[in-house]
Amino acid sequence: MNKDLVIVLAPDSFKESMTAKEACEAMERGIKKVNDKITCIHVPMADGGEGTMQSLVDATEGNIYSLMVVGPLGNEVEAQYGILGDNETGIMEMASASGIHLVPAEKRNPLITTTYGTGQLIRACLEHGVKRLLIGIGGSATNDGGAGVVQALGGRLLDCDGKELSYGGGELGKLARIDMTCFDTRLKDVIVEVACDVTNPLCGERGASNVFGPQKGATPEMIKVLDESLKHYACLIKEQLGKDVLEVPGAGAAGGLGAGLMAFVNGSLKKGIEMVIEYSGLEEKVKNADMVWTGEGSIDFQTQYGKTPLGVAMVAKKYNKPVIALAGRVGEDIDVLYEKGIDSIFGIMKGVTPLEEALARGRENIEKTAENIIRLINVI
Amino acid sequence: MNKDLVIVLAPDSFKESMTAKEACEAMERGIKKVNDKITCIHVPMADGGEGTMQSLVDATEGNIYSLMVVGPLGNEVEAQYGILGDNETGIMEMASASGIHLVPAEKRNPLITTTYGTGQLIRACLEHGVKRLLIGIGGSATNDGGAGVVQALGGRLLDCDGKELSYGGGELGKLARIDMTCFDTRLKDVIVEVACDVTNPLCGERGASNVFGPQKGATPEMIKVLDESLKHYACLIKEQLGKDVLEVPGAGAAGGLGAGLMAFVNGSLKKGIEMVIEYSGLEEKVKNADMVWTGEGSIDFQTQYGKTPLGVAMVAKKYNKPVIALAGRVGEDIDVLYEKGIDSIFGIMKGVTPLEEALARGRENIEKTAENIIRLINVI
Repeated sequence: MNKDLVIVLAPDSFKESMTAKEACEAMERGIKKVNDKITCIHVPMADGGEGTMQSLVDATEGNIYSLMVVGPLGNEVEAQYGILGDNETGIMEMASASGIHLVPAEKRNPLITTTYGTGQLIRACLEHGVKRLLIGIGGSATNDGGAGVVQALGGRLLDCDGKELSYGGGELGKLARIDMTCFDTRLKDVIVEVACDVTNPLCGERGASNVFGPQKGATPEMIKVLDESLKHYACLIKEQLGKDVLEVPGAGAAGGLGAGLMAFVNGSLKKGIEMVIEYSGLEEKVKNADMVWTGEGSIDFQTQYGKTPLGVAMVAKKYNKPVIALAGRVGEDIDVLYEKGIDSIFGIMKGVTPLEEALARGRENIEKTAENIIRLINVI
Repeated sequence: MNKDLVIVLAPDSFKESMTAKEACEAMERGIKKVNDKITCIHVPMADGGEGTMQSLVDATEGNIYSLMVVGPLGNEVEAQYGILGDNETGIMEMASASGIHLVPAEKRNPLITTTYGTGQLIRACLEHGVKRLLIGIGGSATNDGGAGVVQALGGRLLDCDGKELSYGGGELGKLARIDMTCFDTRLKDVIVEVACDVTNPLCGERGASNVFGPQKGATPEMIKVLDESLKHYACLIKEQLGKDVLEVPGAGAAGGLGAGLMAFVNGSLKKGIEMVIEYSGLEEKVKNADMVWTGEGSIDFQTQYGKTPLGVAMVAKKYNKPVIALAGRVGEDIDVLYEKGIDSIFGIMKGVTPLEEALARGRENIEKTAENIIRLINVI
């Protein structure tokens, strides 16, 4: 190997241990310890799930902002959004404002939880004058079809008495009229991309309420109400906005937020990892590298389904670059990952340690493993 | 890397998980999974401690035999010895017949424990007509200066009434005369090499009784008796056999068995790893290899002090071969190992697992790590 090696470092975060950026930094420290002539290009990655905003902001040297918004239960919560380094792209994860982790287990009730706060984050991005909005929609506490988002952006959802609906998926059955008069006009010029890896339709057996309702606290009775409410909602959307979202794959994501973003802000759904690959500029950086390193807290056979290490490997393989992956946990049946482009996978654990210690020592374990990989490369 | 790669696999055992031979086999499985044109030369290693007999018998395709002998407390125990593949070299670990693990904690008492069984193992080797005896002496329960060995081989240790001494270090104070008339004459033609990494003299502050007595169950009062007894024993050896072992470094090993073997069977002490390197034929195999792999259950800064991975690395470095080490546990401050010849060290753990599972899965973890190392080498 020549001394002027260029390595792209494109890991996901190591959940509960470090961000993707911190993983890049740990890899580089290990690499540089052996050979400081190696150039390391950091491309902190994500797959559309948790950490996506952080990684893309880090990858583009953008900024993260905090904001008090309406939480899923109507109480105030502090949420975040980001503006990428191009200053034209806003990014957020709906879970930051409307996530299940914000609702204590005993209070989980998708009849009343709202995406209003997510709408406020969108509004905050519009204040920055963004031309694009990237929205991650995993981990929702809601089943409101994005109704809260619509309300936060100035849309009015009225019952047959002309009264504004309250928050929550349980209200949608009363919807009679959608009034878009005061809807934020800036959205007309904004491209909205939604990171979404599920293909569930809005309603029915595979729909939002039936599949994801239980984990949000819905009882079988609630699920029936929620499913019928979303169906009614989609029906009115079709009648009054001329958009048919009922059967679109992904409409059922995040309690129907997928459908809401498609219907009201012309959102297009995209695989999370593809969105991150595009906005991180990974491909351009891989083209000119000698080698690509990736990684994630856990790697196993599921990594093939839209996870970062495989997404990175597929880009690398377009240009025939070797791909090395590091993981805190290397699970079962990973041979398929070799076939799909990851050349070599190394666990970073140094021995039998309790989980807490493993998480606390993640950085040094990555560093040490990276060092030994370069040491090996050096003598081959 | 060319396809006709020859790799010497020279790990120690992974204690409580697998023998060195099994570690070789696991490495080879992982290697061959990627490239079955690679030639793997197995050299199961050890460092003179536990597993040395097994590894050298495996490395030379010799045999292991079992025998009922007198245990440290005078009860019967099953012990083992080996004959190496050359059919001329006997090998044993004293702990097999006289080890501390054979004595329950509450019965530990070096005043009465004997090395008699070790002498019986030596005798058994002599029956095979060996020309050389290799003896590992770690883990002893005894403090008898090898008196039991002498008795088992036909020597008589008599008190001033001409009565044979009983077993144990506590008896030696009564020794008046050493009668070698019936001592096994075959030993005259046998070279005895003792694997010994400690340099403690027989007596005094750094002697056998003071340093190793407590871990064998000796109280301060016992230690005093034992130390004085060994001193008396050495004094009579000097007077009657003309050998001065009192101050020889290593005489205090294994409760003075070091001294006994030097005095009675002309044993020479040798570093354990050096003995194993010699009798395994490692150097000859390394010469013609492209690469050397080693490993051990645990690798840390102490590995530099006579442990297998470093011993193997030092042989490999004489011939400028790359050295890769695998370990279940990679401990702290290992940078010194790089300086001394190990090029790269990989942990084999796949994640957070309880010790029991880690030990049970040792083979598959080695196999997987070996596979990924070769996969990496393949794309570099």
